[in-house]
Amino acid sequence: MRVIGIDPGLRNLGWGVIDTNGSRITHVANGTCHSSTGTELGARLLSLHSQLTEVFRQFMPDTAGVEQTFVNKDGAGTLKLGQARGIAMLVPAQAGLSIGEYAPNKIKKTVVGVGHADKLQVAHMVKMQLPGVVLTGPDATDALAIALCHAFHARTGNTLSAALARAGA
Amino acid sequence: MRVIGIDPGLRNLGWGVIDTNGSRITHVANGTCHSSTGTELGARLLSLHSQLTEVFRQFMPDTAGVEQTFVNKDGAGTLKLGQARGIAMLVPAQAGLSIGEYAPNKIKKTVVGVGHADKLQVAHMVKMQLPGVVLTGPDATDALAIALCHAFHARTGNTLSAALARAGA
Repeated sequence: MRVIGIDPGLRNLGWGVIDTNGSRITHVANGTCHSSTGTELGARLLSLHSQLTEVFRQFMPDTAGVEQTFVNKDGAGTLKLGQARGIAMLVPAQAGLSIGEYAPNKIKKTVVGVGHADKLQVAHMVKMQLPGVVLTGPDATDALAIALCHAFHARTGNTLSAALARAGA
Repeated sequence: MRVIGIDPGLRNLGWGVIDTNGSRITHVANGTCHSSTGTELGARLLSLHSQLTEVFRQFMPDTAGVEQTFVNKDGAGTLKLGQARGIAMLVPAQAGLSIGEYAPNKIKKTVVGVGHADKLQVAHMVKMQLPGVVLTGPDATDALAIALCHAFHARTGNTLSAALARAGA
């Protein structure tokens, strides 16, 4: 099963792709879609949509996990994030995929074991669970953590759970 | 010039199309794209995207105006609205259109003359400015007001302004 994780953001939208095969988890690719702040909002969303659609075309994931951020500092920030999140949800839906949504604390709890883990801990555990991975940036790292979380929760049984435990702890 | 106005919303996304030709403004069509609350978010956004894309295919507007709502009651509501707004901005961008964004008060001030006008006043003025229009719902009415506002501000010179004043007051 090929899993994509997406960390939505208007300026930087992180993505990470992993493969799960029984108890094996392997890294496929990770990266970040960018849109420049100086551009019109419509053009930025169009650009994010094109870039993420190209990632889906290239890696053809079977299922997707997207971070569920409820509240931001302020209303304007939340609205911006929401618009980017609309694109992050639309692209997998257009590809016919089921989408899992995970709150940040659930992602951290699944990947690190505690809900209040910091970014360094998350990056460390992503590297532990995906040996040899080259993390291309903080948003791509978060996206791989989301993919690991989704892989863990999307599968029934203990096979993957055991593999994650073995690789991570 | 054919103008579409869009009132973003996750459950009800209103749209209204008008034609401006020199000083003449005529109604073309108005309606609402729906997505049901019981469905997954990805499927809802996909449905809104398909419905709105179909509206664009059918009426082929030249330019688009979208309501710019900054803050909602709460963070979760703002995020939802943002996701729908992402779709409302993406569809015209995919059609290669320029997009005007207007705050609710600016729309009311342009169409009714005051920024704090209520929904009934807005509906009344939309009917005055588009004789014979059949308003299909509150979100479609707001969308027509946005289209009128965008037509007014998108054009330079006084021709359209005079026409709006003549039709509306």
